[in-house]
Order: sequence, then C-alpha cells, then structure tokens
Amino acid sequence: MTRGEFSLINHLIKRRPKPDSLFRPCLVGPGDDAALLSSVSRPVITTDTQRENVHFRRAWQTPFEIGSRAVQVTLSDLAASFAKPVALFINLGIPQGTPDLILEGIYEGLASVLEPLGCDLGGGNTCRSEELSLDLFAIGEAMGEMPQRGNAQDGEVLCVTGPLGHARAGLYCLQHRLDGFSELIHAFKRPVARFDAAEILFKHGVRCAMDVSDGLAGDAMHMAKASGVTLDVNLASLPLSSPFADWCAKTGEEALQTMASGGEEYQLLFTCLEEHLDAIQSELFGVIPLGKVKSFDREYVKGLPLGSSSYEHM
Amino acid sequence: MTRGEFSLINHLIKRRPKPDSLFRPCLVGPGDDAALLSSVSRPVITTDTQRENVHFRRAWQTPFEIGSRAVQVTLSDLAASFAKPVALFINLGIPQGTPDLILEGIYEGLASVLEPLGCDLGGGNTCRSEELSLDLFAIGEAMGEMPQRGNAQDGEVLCVTGPLGHARAGLYCLQHRLDGFSELIHAFKRPVARFDAAEILFKHGVRCAMDVSDGLAGDAMHMAKASGVTLDVNLASLPLSSPFADWCAKTGEEALQTMASGGEEYQLLFTCLEEHLDAIQSELFGVIPLGKVKSFDREYVKGLPLGSSSYEHM
Repeated sequence: MTRGEFSLINHLIKRRPKPDSLFRPCLVGPGDDAALLSSVSRPVITTDTQRENVHFRRAWQTPFEIGSRAVQVTLSDLAASFAKPVALFINLGIPQGTPDLILEGIYEGLASVLEPLGCDLGGGNTCRSEELSLDLFAIGEAMGEMPQRGNAQDGEVLCVTGPLGHARAGLYCLQHRLDGFSELIHAFKRPVARFDAAEILFKHGVRCAMDVSDGLAGDAMHMAKASGVTLDVNLASLPLSSPFADWCAKTGEEALQTMASGGEEYQLLFTCLEEHLDAIQSELFGVIPLGKVKSFDREYVKGLPLGSSSYEHM
Repeated sequence: MTRGEFSLINHLIKRRPKPDSLFRPCLVGPGDDAALLSSVSRPVITTDTQRENVHFRRAWQTPFEIGSRAVQVTLSDLAASFAKPVALFINLGIPQGTPDLILEGIYEGLASVLEPLGCDLGGGNTCRSEELSLDLFAIGEAMGEMPQRGNAQDGEVLCVTGPLGHARAGLYCLQHRLDGFSELIHAFKRPVARFDAAEILFKHGVRCAMDVSDGLAGDAMHMAKASGVTLDVNLASLPLSSPFADWCAKTGEEALQTMASGGEEYQLLFTCLEEHLDAIQSELFGVIPLGKVKSFDREYVKGLPLGSSSYEHM
C-alpha cells in the first residue's frame, strides 16, 4: 500500500479491535506494506465497487449508511459462498474538499458491520478521485464445499431466503421522493449479508446458492444457464407484505414485475431437495419456495412476468 | 461480485491459464459470487489504486504499460513482504465511451506480468466511472516470517536492491517532454516487483524490508520511526549510472536530491547484519549499501540532502 496515502486510512482504522487471535485475524496489520493473516484453509475472496451516483447518493444516504451498506453488499458474496468473513480491505476514492466528517461517518458504518462479525479491517488505500468511491475486497473462509450457481439439479426446489422487490420499491421511493414507506427504504439502505442463512443452508447440504443482487430475473437466468436446467418459477405463491402491497397500490407498479426485476435484495437464492425444505424452513424463518428445477426445456427461466429484466443501477 | 458487470471482466479474463493446480490456484474462478482458492497457510494481502492523472497518464503510457505497471506496483508490496503471489483481483473504473481496445490493452499488460509469475487473475468488477481507475487486490503466501519495517536493529547495514532516482528522472523526462533518456523513462514505466531479491533476502534472514515507493527520504523515515532507530545515510557512496549522470547534467537537477526524493522505484530497502552483506551481494547483483542503523540519536534519518521530501504523485 502507498505510505504517502496511509495517514488517513490509519486514522480511519484506529478503532480496529485490540490484538486478539479471535477477533483480529490480521497478525501484521496496516502500516506495513501488506497485511499478514493467520492461516486460511479455504480462502474465499470477493471484491465489490460502490460509486457515488451509481450505487449510492449522498442526498439519500448518510455516510454511515453508505459505509455499512458497502460492507454488507460485499460480504453478501461471502455469505452466498457459505464462507465466514475474515478480513476486509478498502480503497477510498475521495474528491478534493471532502470533509473528514463524511469519511469518519463512512468508517463508522464500516465498523458497525465488521465488528459484530469479528471481521478485521486489514487496511487499504485512499486516493483523490473525481467521485466518492469505495472499492472493497473481502477474504473469508469457506465452511466447507463452496456452493455454485451451476449446481442446481433437476427435481430440486428453488427458494429464496426472504421477500423480493422491497429494496427496489424502496429505491423507487427515494427516486420519487415518496414518503411513508420506511420499511421498504430500509430494505434498500440496509441490506444484510445472510450469514445466518448460509450456516443453516450449508448444514442442510445446499450445493447451489447465490445472492440476489441483479434481481430474480437476472440471477435465476445466471443460475439456470450455469446449471443447464430450466427454472420453473411461480411468483403467484409469494406473500405480499403489507408495506409492499400498499406501495403497489399507491404507485400502480406491478407487484410480480417488481419482485422479478428488483435487484439489490441480497437475499440468498438457492435450490434444495424437496425433502429438506421443511427442515430448512423450520430453522430459517422467511424461506420462500419460488418454483422447481427441471431438466432443460427450451427456456432457462419460465413463469416470470413478461418484460422482467435484470436490475440496472440507479 | 456484481453479475451485471461481469460480462466485460469475464471477457478480459478469458485468457486465464487453463485449470492446473500449479498455475491456477483459483479452484472456483470468476463467474460465481466469489473465488475459492486452494489453502494459503500464511496469507499476505495488499491493495493498491492506480488512477488516471494521479498515477498514470494515457498521453505517456500505452494501455499495456498502464496494466503491467499497475500489477508490478501492487505485487511489489508482496515482494517487500517476502511473499509469493497467488491471485490478483481487479476493479476497473471505466469512463463512458472507453474503446474496448484500451481495456484489452490494459488486460494484456496485466496478463504479461501475472502469467510468468504463475499468479492467477481471480476476478473483479467493472464499473462506469468519471476517470479510468484500477483498484488491485493481491493475495500471496509468505515464504516464512514476514519482514517488517519496525525490525531494523542498531548495528545493521541499510541497503537498497538497485539504483535510486531513475524512475523520478524518467517521470521528469515525460513531464518535460525530454527525449533521449529511454532507460530512465523505462525505469518509471516498467518497474519490477523484486521477487528475485525477496527470495535471496529471505534466505539470508533479513527481517526488515520495504519497497521504495515514496522515495528514500520518506520510506527511510517510515522505517526509522517504526524501528525507533536513527538511519545514518551516505548517498555519496551511490554510483551514478551514465544515463542518470547525463540527465543531471542536462537538467541541472541535483543528483543526491533526486535519489533521496524520487519515488516509484519499487526497489527493496532493507537492513542486514554487516557479516551477511558480502554473501547477499554475491547472490544479488546491484545491492547498494546506503548507510548504518544506529541507536536513536535526536534525528530519525541523517545524511540526506536538505529538503529531501517524500515523493508526491504527478
């Protein structure tokens, strides 16, 4: 890392947990050229970018919310890989004249997610930039075999760990300055990486999982193509939460369309054996069966409303 | 990683080495939510940012040079940590309307460095951006104990693995459109992560090392402060290469000043026991003793020309 740019990042990470083998996997932390971690037997690595006006807006989100969301979104890929988070690294692109308070707020947001997870902040860089940007890199340790989107098997049930469309509806509320839907706005601003679900799904031998970041339509297509199967989806079976139903009524937006197209959910989309579904549902509240995995038959994904498309960023 | 942004990165990494336990540590590569690596017993992680007009300029560097330099600069932190590179991840920030040819060129540059090192390209993201930016994240495996800048011991010799000031002089030539110094310009455009030196220094039990990215003045200060010692430097002993001497004569720039302040060298600055120096020099061509490590005496770094300052980016 560039020492010339280290003073700020050092400042930002001054609040790292005290040395402790459990909560501080970085044996040699920021300040040296690189971070040395304790042994990782099955390293899982992911990276994500959050850029102003593409992934977040300061008019909509506080610095704390921008920071916490960026970490949740990045760690969600580890949850979808059934991996426990070990350490996070962050490069901050900072426009000239950005007040320290904003950077502090972003850091507070990062720390609020990392600390309860026992995930270390290993370091990073700061660099002046035209726009505020966060580039995050996370390393985790796989619980065991890593699930893959190409593992969906004919005869399995397609499920999701929570409601779809809420985050998209929340984003709509922000875009259209629509008040009174705090639950939906919260779903957009405060996604949660589903490590709780990952542990249970792993325990039950789930081998095909991914997080819903592009929206069901897009992500189901990725899964079906990778697995060479047809996913026969039936959204009609999905319950509508009252805030979501109210939002549809108020905006005239089509519920199924929104559920199919809305991204940024960060719920886990997975397939499991029919006979495991009850056990999974009994341990993991909110799991919703969406349809069936079938041997490939002409289309990769069936049963989605016409015109459902992949989520595009704001 | 965001699937919505995956098509380009997948395109860019189509040329990854074929599956092979030796040259492809990523067991599950790009395309899934995260990359699964084979076990890393002593993971060393670093991250770097390269932004247009801060770290590189398209007017001066080809896309190939921008890509290869970004990787060398990032991996240099692993070399300075005596770690072998395992996998690299890259987030590309791409201004709208950037021709694919430029991205292909950058990728060719990345691959030209990674492939000979057997370092895998694990994946990454692409995102539209105001400026062309590369955020790189590298994981390596430490050869053994990781050297730290805080380990310099009273009585040791301070050394560098190669000439200082060449890269700075090369940058000057680019900034002032000064022709005829291709060697110096090459030193700026084509730094090399010194894994060759790392192996030899590790073998000889060197415990204090860092790469010279901020320039000797800045980096010696980091080392001295971290070690709580005084570094007594004597640059007069440094040989002047003929291109560098010619450059000084032509520009009127002060040689010692340039050697002390010039950054972006990516040589390794290290300390070793006096009695090991001969053996190290016999195995590693170009090692230059710069001075002595002494118990702290009022100043952290002595013997540098007045006004030597840390390197600032272009």
